[in-house]
Amino acid sequence: MKKPKIVIVGAGYGGLMTTVRLQKLVGVNEADIVLINKNDYHYETTWLHEASAGTLHHDRVRYDIRDVIDRSKVDFVQDTVVEIKKEEKKVILEKGEVEYDYLVIALGGEPETFGIKGLKEYAFGITNVNSSRQLREHIEYQFATYNMEEEKNDNRLVIVVGGAGFTGIEFLGELTNRIPELCHEYDVDSHKVKILCVEAAPTVLPGFDPELVNYAVSQLERKGVEFLIGTAIKECTPNGIIVAKGEEEPREIKAETVVWAAGVRGNSIIEKSGFEAMRGRVKVQPDLRVPGFDDVFIIGDSSLVINEEINRPYPPTAQIAMQQGEVVARNIAALVRGKQDLETFTFDNKGTVCSLGHDDAIGVVFGKKVTGAKASFMKKVVDNRSLYMIGGAGLVLKKGKFNVF
Amino acid sequence: MKKPKIVIVGAGYGGLMTTVRLQKLVGVNEADIVLINKNDYHYETTWLHEASAGTLHHDRVRYDIRDVIDRSKVDFVQDTVVEIKKEEKKVILEKGEVEYDYLVIALGGEPETFGIKGLKEYAFGITNVNSSRQLREHIEYQFATYNMEEEKNDNRLVIVVGGAGFTGIEFLGELTNRIPELCHEYDVDSHKVKILCVEAAPTVLPGFDPELVNYAVSQLERKGVEFLIGTAIKECTPNGIIVAKGEEEPREIKAETVVWAAGVRGNSIIEKSGFEAMRGRVKVQPDLRVPGFDDVFIIGDSSLVINEEINRPYPPTAQIAMQQGEVVARNIAALVRGKQDLETFTFDNKGTVCSLGHDDAIGVVFGKKVTGAKASFMKKVVDNRSLYMIGGAGLVLKKGKFNVF
Repeated sequence: MKKPKIVIVGAGYGGLMTTVRLQKLVGVNEADIVLINKNDYHYETTWLHEASAGTLHHDRVRYDIRDVIDRSKVDFVQDTVVEIKKEEKKVILEKGEVEYDYLVIALGGEPETFGIKGLKEYAFGITNVNSSRQLREHIEYQFATYNMEEEKNDNRLVIVVGGAGFTGIEFLGELTNRIPELCHEYDVDSHKVKILCVEAAPTVLPGFDPELVNYAVSQLERKGVEFLIGTAIKECTPNGIIVAKGEEEPREIKAETVVWAAGVRGNSIIEKSGFEAMRGRVKVQPDLRVPGFDDVFIIGDSSLVINEEINRPYPPTAQIAMQQGEVVARNIAALVRGKQDLETFTFDNKGTVCSLGHDDAIGVVFGKKVTGAKASFMKKVVDNRSLYMIGGAGLVLKKGKFNVF
Repeated sequence: MKKPKIVIVGAGYGGLMTTVRLQKLVGVNEADIVLINKNDYHYETTWLHEASAGTLHHDRVRYDIRDVIDRSKVDFVQDTVVEIKKEEKKVILEKGEVEYDYLVIALGGEPETFGIKGLKEYAFGITNVNSSRQLREHIEYQFATYNMEEEKNDNRLVIVVGGAGFTGIEFLGELTNRIPELCHEYDVDSHKVKILCVEAAPTVLPGFDPELVNYAVSQLERKGVEFLIGTAIKECTPNGIIVAKGEEEPREIKAETVVWAAGVRGNSIIEKSGFEAMRGRVKVQPDLRVPGFDDVFIIGDSSLVINEEINRPYPPTAQIAMQQGEVVARNIAALVRGKQDLETFTFDNKGTVCSLGHDDAIGVVFGKKVTGAKASFMKKVVDNRSLYMIGGAGLVLKKGKFNVF
């Protein structure tokens, strides 16, 4: 009898969690496991704001996939997915193709630019290691160039962050810590630096507790951030952005650095492969399989799970992706052993912490509101926990955050 | 009786050495000492190739002027010299003017571009802290951007160094050490990186011992440098350079980074102020005064002293500038005390070491040829010695180089 082949595409939080759990649950004689990923490393998406601001080196936010998988059980293939031929049960890669009996799609999200003109061309993203280190180097180059100019271009010192959601706020927290260092290193007058956050929604951090939101806003304002709330970015140009508040006349804000930190959508491979999706996200069954395709699971940013309490989808987070990975691993193990009764996924929200720099944060943990040093400590516990869940104590020691005071 | 006022413009090797010696030689009741400098820091010009390549942080190559001068004896003014009115005995500054009884011009050199089109606009320089950190950030940004591009621009990984003199060779030594790190940090295939050195003269390091030159060339070639000798840069463009070898047809070399490391001339303030000069350098008297102006001394890169042995000017170096500073301090002390018999400057060449990275070098020290680790060690001794001469043991401990193995 032929062994079933389990293929996992994507080694983000969801895909890697599925893999490390499956390699424990399934014996080498029961199934073949193949993990496919574009890079040979996993990166901590939730730490990218630090690499982007330059407060943590970008090599600190990633680790070698081969260090956490059991290579005697999992076959790792470094390649990029081009398309999934779900009727033929195979994955088309740039350099080949792989057939599967069970497929886990954990390809991660993509930035959503809502068709705003120029964003793709001129705005920087906090999307992956490549984009984060480019953003960091771009900002440093602006500071380094400022003193070289005979006629100073003050817009080099203007940084616009589009979006006051989780990523935007966490990036602002790090950036405002980094700016005084940059000013010192590059002999730039800190009064000349301008940091703006533009958000189309009527509030910062929509969905967060208003008391915590007020705390975050006042802390960031104190560190020099100017918030333009209820203000939409209409266009991004090589020299800045065009914004409009309500029915007001659009106006230009000149800035050499524009960061787009609003909006995530599912992976474009989902639509390209013909799955029925909303903004690249597939509404999965309670067992996390795709309706009509009993051999395909989707988890993470390209999956859509409804929060029954408020009848709206859960926002895509590392926490939900990892919990999905655990359930998918158990469900696939069951299928391999011929069981048809699969486990239902329910999200167990342990809380959310939004950092405001390495020394400050806001959050709700086990139902309790926290701010300041306590919240910041909790954030590091959360960060270390995901390392522990995937790579154990060794990975925490290697890549963990211990600057807790 | 009015106290004479001694004004020193420039806090490079020569100006700072003059100042620290004068503050010991001359009592507060004998003269006022004023030191004027554009920045509030001194930088080690001879270490800039390291800051430019990114092997040493740019804050390591500078120190606060106030840390090495005796502020009870020396009045430090941070301002930029606009012109010297030698007939009126005053220095015009951007924010004011200062009269003098004795003036020491130690303003340092400027890059000489020989009128080559586009060099000023498009080439980077290893001239000061500002230019060096911009060059470093530019290179890092090219590496950071490479992986973000769908259509790869391989020219981002091409670095052209114009000039195979001291600065060019020392920069290449650091750069070739830095490239493997950059490739690792930014996931770039090191085979795609191309480093070219273009030199119009028929040899690398003209004036150096041929055996040592051969050693340097073969070491740098082994680390990936391609030398184009006897080849002139005709033009620098936003996309690279146009070169021609002898009578050959000019050809284009595409490169996103062009570094101009050839040619130093005297300071433009010299000509602007009406001193008779050759490329900004004034042929000073044996006592280092300007012919016809008994109250003005010129030292460092803007002074010209003939090496009688070969009847050619000594090349401008930190070593000669510091020795000149010592003599000028003694001569001014003599003048203040009414003596007219001044000391004659003779250059005591202790040797020259050209580094090829932190771990390799070539040199002639006390008349003996050295290469490799021994020469590299000597280079660090030289670097620490200039710290010691100006700021004593404390400055060596703070800024010295101790990575000797």
